[in-house]
Amino acid sequence: MTVNRRFLLARRPHGTPVPQDFSLVEQPVPEAPEGGFVVRNCYASLDPAQRGWMDDAPSYMPPIPLGDPVRATTVGVVAASKSPDFAVGDWVLGMNGLEDYSVNVAGGFTMKVDVSQVDSPSRFLSAMGAVGLTAYFGLTEVARPKAGETLLVSGAAGAVGSAVGQIGKIMGCRVIGIAGGPAKCRRLIEDYGFDVAIDYKTAEGRAKSVAELAAEIRAAAPNGADVVFENVGGDVMDAELLNLAKYARIVLCGMISEYNSPEKIGVRNLWQVLAQQATLYGYLVMDYVPRFAEGGAVMAGWMAEGRLRIDEDVQEGLENAYDAFMRLFTGANTGKLVLKIADGL
Amino acid sequence: MTVNRRFLLARRPHGTPVPQDFSLVEQPVPEAPEGGFVVRNCYASLDPAQRGWMDDAPSYMPPIPLGDPVRATTVGVVAASKSPDFAVGDWVLGMNGLEDYSVNVAGGFTMKVDVSQVDSPSRFLSAMGAVGLTAYFGLTEVARPKAGETLLVSGAAGAVGSAVGQIGKIMGCRVIGIAGGPAKCRRLIEDYGFDVAIDYKTAEGRAKSVAELAAEIRAAAPNGADVVFENVGGDVMDAELLNLAKYARIVLCGMISEYNSPEKIGVRNLWQVLAQQATLYGYLVMDYVPRFAEGGAVMAGWMAEGRLRIDEDVQEGLENAYDAFMRLFTGANTGKLVLKIADGL
Repeated sequence: MTVNRRFLLARRPHGTPVPQDFSLVEQPVPEAPEGGFVVRNCYASLDPAQRGWMDDAPSYMPPIPLGDPVRATTVGVVAASKSPDFAVGDWVLGMNGLEDYSVNVAGGFTMKVDVSQVDSPSRFLSAMGAVGLTAYFGLTEVARPKAGETLLVSGAAGAVGSAVGQIGKIMGCRVIGIAGGPAKCRRLIEDYGFDVAIDYKTAEGRAKSVAELAAEIRAAAPNGADVVFENVGGDVMDAELLNLAKYARIVLCGMISEYNSPEKIGVRNLWQVLAQQATLYGYLVMDYVPRFAEGGAVMAGWMAEGRLRIDEDVQEGLENAYDAFMRLFTGANTGKLVLKIADGL
Repeated sequence: MTVNRRFLLARRPHGTPVPQDFSLVEQPVPEAPEGGFVVRNCYASLDPAQRGWMDDAPSYMPPIPLGDPVRATTVGVVAASKSPDFAVGDWVLGMNGLEDYSVNVAGGFTMKVDVSQVDSPSRFLSAMGAVGLTAYFGLTEVARPKAGETLLVSGAAGAVGSAVGQIGKIMGCRVIGIAGGPAKCRRLIEDYGFDVAIDYKTAEGRAKSVAELAAEIRAAAPNGADVVFENVGGDVMDAELLNLAKYARIVLCGMISEYNSPEKIGVRNLWQVLAQQATLYGYLVMDYVPRFAEGGAVMAGWMAEGRLRIDEDVQEGLENAYDAFMRLFTGANTGKLVLKIADGL
């Protein structure tokens, strides 16, 4: 191929992204720079975090520059190389973009992966990539629940949440998940083995109030949650905060309810963190990147034993990037959302 | 004396307490119960936390029952005893109430104190009591700042905040305090040795916006705060959250901006805790009560060396309890607020 299709951020979304915030352009395939290489992106990870990177706001990564492709973790094949460490044909995982070809220079988060050990390269974006390992390290290293403790997970049917709940069960916790709608709640129980599923929506589809949701959590966990794995923020988090056990640990992993909200909803019950002498950990998996191989091996072992199920929601085609990305916010998505761009070189 | 004046919680305040929320009644002095004693309260601690105890809301202590005296830490003298451990004339520190005489039973937070080592028994409510030791253990055990780190303190002119700032200086930190009004800000620099004082009010007396306050903090701490000691919550906390250094530690010690607010203001920038991989500790000093003697000795040593100044704002007379308590919320109070009830037996 000689054309590089690129899904660019054309302007900063205000609230929920609209198609006009992006543009799909065709540019020449770049050449490998000295010391670097060009990767043919095959699978791209679509994550709520990308919405945050589109805002011009301080965060753990700089905003995506306007006119650049939307930043994404991808797995792909080296197509051209002037690096002594990467050869054409090597499979690599790295922070690239929603485009056919990305230029990689030395340094940064790029590693070779062995695709012969998995049924699909996309596994390195789900179970054995940042998503699965966000769940793994967040639970085993940050929250460190003890057997018998109660684990409360929000966004529980999502890619991270469903893994967190299953790892919690493996660790001996009683696991309560919060998700939206009866179908997702059924999956929590039937597919992922949660002990309790709480629907944050009413039968009519409106979001329950903080008081309503707090009462349902209280009924499921009368002694409170020892560990909260937070992916949602906003009212869901406020309801959880009213149900903390003393010395609870809260892993703040995401706040998807806020990403499309120009006016931040905020959290009103932070006082409960004080009252229960709880600890809230701001958590990013990037500190654990050097341990990805170790964590990935544990996850692969659990999957081989049938104890861990990591679903993928594979959408196809760079030209469908917008529609695919929006599945994260409409509730359509269950499991790790991945955009397939190509099979290989 | 045969009369026990008691400052009772008559009804739950809605927002800022009004005089009608309380009643001062005269009842007979109680008798010592089997195994317990009666304490003649001499000094009572007035703290923002008491406002929280007046609400019928879940917290770390049960709400004050309506018709009971307002719960308060007091220092006083044993007036009558049927306890083998406490004799008439012993000075004791304990959780009692805003009343002339309180009944103590075994257990709970009550300890004898040696008033011969201090210039006033009220010291056990300030430097060597819960307030001074909230600052001491919160900083030395929870936040654990390293020399050269930047410490940001809100409510900095308050009893806890002024002690936190001074202990931070003793530990080698650069200390930035946030307080309301030029007089308090001057005290931070001149009396307490803070490096920078930031006024959260404009010259016209209105509270600055989150953006305005955040910009002033950024100017004072371009690399962000390594440690935040939070006493205020609300907009002040939101401005602080926009100025966290990576891996910042936040000690959530109080949220005085919320105590009189029926509609919780909330915090909108919690995302920054995630983005900066910060940790927020919900902190109560009660876990450190067994170490009060140890901490009090350190504080007394610093005071003797002239390195630590703990001011007291001593108001007089149980009949003035309401006016004295309100000094906490009007901005009138600087230093540890104490209500003097009696000199001794």
